[in-house]
Amino acid sequence: MVDFDQQVEGEMAMTKVAVIMGSTSDWPTMQLTTTQLDQLGITYEKRVISAHRMPKQLLDFAENARNNGLSVIIAGAGGAAHLPGMIAASTTLPVIGVPIKTRTLSGIDSLLSIVQMPSGVPVGTVAIGDAGASNAALYAAAILAVNDAELAERLADYRTAQTERALASGEALHE
Amino acid sequence: MVDFDQQVEGEMAMTKVAVIMGSTSDWPTMQLTTTQLDQLGITYEKRVISAHRMPKQLLDFAENARNNGLSVIIAGAGGAAHLPGMIAASTTLPVIGVPIKTRTLSGIDSLLSIVQMPSGVPVGTVAIGDAGASNAALYAAAILAVNDAELAERLADYRTAQTERALASGEALHE
Amino acid sequence: MVDFDQQVEGEMAMTKVAVIMGSTSDWPTMQLTTTQLDQLGITYEKRVISAHRMPKQLLDFAENARNNGLSVIIAGAGGAAHLPGMIAASTTLPVIGVPIKTRTLSGIDSLLSIVQMPSGVPVGTVAIGDAGASNAALYAAAILAVNDAELAERLADYRTAQTERALASGEALHE
Amino acid sequence: MVDFDQQVEGEMAMTKVAVIMGSTSDWPTMQLTTTQLDQLGITYEKRVISAHRMPKQLLDFAENARNNGLSVIIAGAGGAAHLPGMIAASTTLPVIGVPIKTRTLSGIDSLLSIVQMPSGVPVGTVAIGDAGASNAALYAAAILAVNDAELAERLADYRTAQTERALASGEALHE
Amino acid sequence: MVDFDQQVEGEMAMTKVAVIMGSTSDWPTMQLTTTQLDQLGITYEKRVISAHRMPKQLLDFAENARNNGLSVIIAGAGGAAHLPGMIAASTTLPVIGVPIKTRTLSGIDSLLSIVQMPSGVPVGTVAIGDAGASNAALYAAAILAVNDAELAERLADYRTAQTERALASGEALHE
Amino acid sequence: MVDFDQQVEGEMAMTKVAVIMGSTSDWPTMQLTTTQLDQLGITYEKRVISAHRMPKQLLDFAENARNNGLSVIIAGAGGAAHLPGMIAASTTLPVIGVPIKTRTLSGIDSLLSIVQMPSGVPVGTVAIGDAGASNAALYAAAILAVNDAELAERLADYRTAQTERALASGEALHE
Amino acid sequence: MVDFDQQVEGEMAMTKVAVIMGSTSDWPTMQLTTTQLDQLGITYEKRVISAHRMPKQLLDFAENARNNGLSVIIAGAGGAAHLPGMIAASTTLPVIGVPIKTRTLSGIDSLLSIVQMPSGVPVGTVAIGDAGASNAALYAAAILAVNDAELAERLADYRTAQTERALASGEALHE
Amino acid sequence: MVDFDQQVEGEMAMTKVAVIMGSTSDWPTMQLTTTQLDQLGITYEKRVISAHRMPKQLLDFAENARNNGLSVIIAGAGGAAHLPGMIAASTTLPVIGVPIKTRTLSGIDSLLSIVQMPSGVPVGTVAIGDAGASNAALYAAAILAVNDAELAERLADYRTAQTERALASGEALHE
Repeated sequence: MVDFDQQVEGEMAMTKVAVIMGSTSDWPTMQLTTTQLDQLGITYEKRVISAHRMPKQLLDFAENARNNGLSVIIAGAGGAAHLPGMIAASTTLPVIGVPIKTRTLSGIDSLLSIVQMPSGVPVGTVAIGDAGASNAALYAAAILAVNDAELAERLADYRTAQTERALASGEALHE
Repeated sequence: MVDFDQQVEGEMAMTKVAVIMGSTSDWPTMQLTTTQLDQLGITYEKRVISAHRMPKQLLDFAENARNNGLSVIIAGAGGAAHLPGMIAASTTLPVIGVPIKTRTLSGIDSLLSIVQMPSGVPVGTVAIGDAGASNAALYAAAILAVNDAELAERLADYRTAQTERALASGEALHE
Repeated sequence: MVDFDQQVEGEMAMTKVAVIMGSTSDWPTMQLTTTQLDQLGITYEKRVISAHRMPKQLLDFAENARNNGLSVIIAGAGGAAHLPGMIAASTTLPVIGVPIKTRTLSGIDSLLSIVQMPSGVPVGTVAIGDAGASNAALYAAAILAVNDAELAERLADYRTAQTERALASGEALHE
Repeated sequence: MVDFDQQVEGEMAMTKVAVIMGSTSDWPTMQLTTTQLDQLGITYEKRVISAHRMPKQLLDFAENARNNGLSVIIAGAGGAAHLPGMIAASTTLPVIGVPIKTRTLSGIDSLLSIVQMPSGVPVGTVAIGDAGASNAALYAAAILAVNDAELAERLADYRTAQTERALASGEALHE
Repeated sequence: MVDFDQQVEGEMAMTKVAVIMGSTSDWPTMQLTTTQLDQLGITYEKRVISAHRMPKQLLDFAENARNNGLSVIIAGAGGAAHLPGMIAASTTLPVIGVPIKTRTLSGIDSLLSIVQMPSGVPVGTVAIGDAGASNAALYAAAILAVNDAELAERLADYRTAQTERALASGEALHE
Repeated sequence: MVDFDQQVEGEMAMTKVAVIMGSTSDWPTMQLTTTQLDQLGITYEKRVISAHRMPKQLLDFAENARNNGLSVIIAGAGGAAHLPGMIAASTTLPVIGVPIKTRTLSGIDSLLSIVQMPSGVPVGTVAIGDAGASNAALYAAAILAVNDAELAERLADYRTAQTERALASGEALHE
Repeated sequence: MVDFDQQVEGEMAMTKVAVIMGSTSDWPTMQLTTTQLDQLGITYEKRVISAHRMPKQLLDFAENARNNGLSVIIAGAGGAAHLPGMIAASTTLPVIGVPIKTRTLSGIDSLLSIVQMPSGVPVGTVAIGDAGASNAALYAAAILAVNDAELAERLADYRTAQTERALASGEALHE
Repeated sequence: MVDFDQQVEGEMAMTKVAVIMGSTSDWPTMQLTTTQLDQLGITYEKRVISAHRMPKQLLDFAENARNNGLSVIIAGAGGAAHLPGMIAASTTLPVIGVPIKTRTLSGIDSLLSIVQMPSGVPVGTVAIGDAGASNAALYAAAILAVNDAELAERLADYRTAQTERALASGEALHE
């Protein structure tokens, strides 16, 4: 049930990140998360767990997440987006919430449903839609890098490369 | 664990309505629900079940609600208000969601978190705050009255009295 | 004036649900309601009743709804969406409001016009647009199932099937 | 049932404007309408007609408004503010809608419920709250003044005086 | 500079309504106003007057509007929509504001810029976009009909026909 | 009609900045503008010019602003805040718009009415309320400082002092 | 690193305006700024400086902007749009912020991130998207024209031509 | 420059968390963060670093944060809240953003300015105001607990106690 990623040599096979989404319709967005994790050489598992259609599975997953070796959980959901908050309610692992853009309210409903958690159970929320999805991966990396000097360096390299691409794009604009 | 109400003669002691709230801080609002239920002679139980602090209790409650003789569940919650939707996810009883007014966003966050449920699991949502809280009781009564001619009549009487009060208040304004 | 649905064997011909919409332009959305009712084997009638173009017909319909054997009314409307609230004003039957997505404000106008009912006359409101339309049918089923053990079971089966589909879609994502 | 105002000499006793509100709780706001009508010497009647608690009375009132000698109807309502639109649905007289400020959403709900009328039945909407309430009177005056040269002059005088007060307040600021 | 409309026999050639817009880009919307005025047999002139590009012409137009025989001014504008309010500032004729839908904020900016007028100078505001544009014509008709029994009857006929169309569309849905 | 400020020695008496507000009720906010201008030693005149109550005076003021020696105009207004845009429509001087906080919509109406100007006539808009009012003065200073080395230095000193105060407040927090 | 524009004869080669954007994806919008500057004969340089990917370059640019001969900085950014504010934090030159329209929230996020600057560091903000981008150029021109009579005249001519185009478009509509 | 907390026995003196705020006016909110950190026995330093008044200090702090032994940075800011994003731009440590409630827009401006970060630089955002401030501490604890079994246990204990308090408060409500 684990997706291994061999891109980064020497990466250990232990899955530390779970990428959860409420529905397969969230996959086009959440794919940006897994693509970004792949680029950083971070192994992950991905799952569909609907807060509203699979509440028991949600609790099972969340309660056992730490024991199953997970370190960070990324959860994307749209509309009345209860998934990230309900996972956070049953684990002390850091949960990153990705508000999926919705057809009616563009994701402002998803954002408020995820970020406005009551005192006691936080969800670290990122931007609505695509930017948030890829940033969730970078944020998971930042969390893992707190105690992983090698990953911290890789993340720093990624950021440097990103800056260089931005600089280069600016040069191109001048010409 | 049940609050009996003897106001209406001949009312059976069986509790059909549960009034749930995410926190005791929601009680000043949800009290309007129980006051209204009292006035209609509908028995109820009231409980604090926090979606985020008591997810297991929430599931237990919701999964057993029908077997425990409940017919309608009223759930009030604020902010990232996951309570009504998560109860609805684990029961086929009708769930009425009351968006509690919040200090930061006045309850627009509560409203969107409750009403924007995905296809498959509905929550019947009422107005933000006080009006919604008392209307939740009336809506529960309307649901119970579908198969309870006596309650339907009582509800009709309540509405007639309400109209008469409104008419009288208008007369008073003229003078 | 009744649409019979024979899909579920043994279903009685008595229409218990009315599906009302403010305009035929709401039909593409409200069709999701009737499709869902069909799937659950719940008979219904569907009508166009414009609150603003047919206020008398609206009152006639609502005042006689209970006597005509209806148990639940589903009303979809967009913009200054007065239909659900005005029906609720003239009946004690439970009214389910479906906020239609609008071209200018995406249905936030419809939502607020439907859900923000004053104390005394509630409308059980569901999500904006398609999700709300199909959920209105499920909510009507939940209301009818309060006193209909057979329907309650059918609804539970529907929910189980829904969970299984969600689980299967998650399996497919893994592969 | 009519409030006469003798302030302006020679004013005819015929009531041309109705000031309607959904509840006596709207009176502190709608009083600004009647105060302004008094200042302009326009006679009016004021009434509480709740769209949701008195739908029949609403229809009766609206259908007979023109025959009863009314020329303009001002209707104030808050939240799911259906009153102005439902009056407009049953009369061809111009209806002026005043969105009452609400405790939860500050009147943005009232505004959208009043202004977003569908094609076919307009409501001329003014600002939320106090400014809208007094402006409703001025707008009624403007409508009546279309065919009333004397009132048109009085309105022009009012505006001139208003400009002078504004100019004087500016002078005072300088000193 | 006047567009005559001969559709309704015996209609006098005197232009009573001005349809103003801030830019020719508003014409696709405001054309719905003139189409509706045509249908009602109301003569009108139409003009582009930009509040921001032609402030002097705006003042000239507004100050002379009544003397030029106008009775009602319909003004459509988008974004920081100052046109209706600035016309209203220089005339005592009733001004109807049409908030044009905008590409960035869908017309909520237009709506607030038009409707939130300060105490002293009202604008009767209709719905954002197409519905508002055609309703502006109907509202102008309602204003003119206050003192024009023939137009009042025509307007009543229009409303009856509208109701019949709505009823017929409902019948069609049943079949 | 000019307020001289002698605080900064050697400051010339020529008034370069006009501080305009739509109503004396805006003065508690706009006073923060003049206080800040005083601190920077920038002379100014302050006036009440209501776009809606004094449209002619507005045009006169704006058309002659440059010839009267003004360099920058600061205009504060609330609600349907047309003042800054209408001044900008009649002058090529830079206009700074201050959205006044409103009682109903907290100034989001003021902000959109001021900032969403159409292509062709810009208003440089600052924050809603108090922060915007004092920042308007700093922005006017920045504009004047483009060609005034002495003022540029004074502004830089002000900013340095501001940074030092912020640093000091941080130190205090540590202790 | 400077883009010269020879359109206006005799224009000095000194670049006074910098057009900055957070990403090349903002170029389709910000191109409207440079087109407008070209039309006004104002020389400019354009650069990509990402507040989040190039914070050091941002500070370097801003701190040296005045010494490098710049007079006005135009900065476009979208979403959590920190670019204009962070430039303003490191220079006393006037900064004009252009909120880029975003895919999820249409630029209301960009607008609030740019305009709601705290007391002490202002950004002159223009409209969201295209209108704001071209207006930023006109506002820069207005700032430069405070001390450049020739540019002031050119700007006045531009505005006159603009008014004439608007008048002509109105004439065309009549026919 | 470090605040030690001796509450939890055996807690090492190494500061792992920085609590940053844009202004001392944010302290009443951010104090909830430090109180919560104290309760969890997590050492921290607290600082005022204004993105707009101290941009250089901000960069210095962020660039050296990891080398100075920090693991997580909590940053609270209001309005155009650039602080969390600008810190995140200069470090690969996880940054937690707390949107401070604002007087004009209640913190929706702060929320969007913090959460809507572009692809490449994430900020983990928590709820607006008090709930967010205390949750930021819990989220920091969750991040640190990824590799700190003892802290993970303490956090689990905290959550258990929290659940028990919620259960007890529910019991009290029954009585």
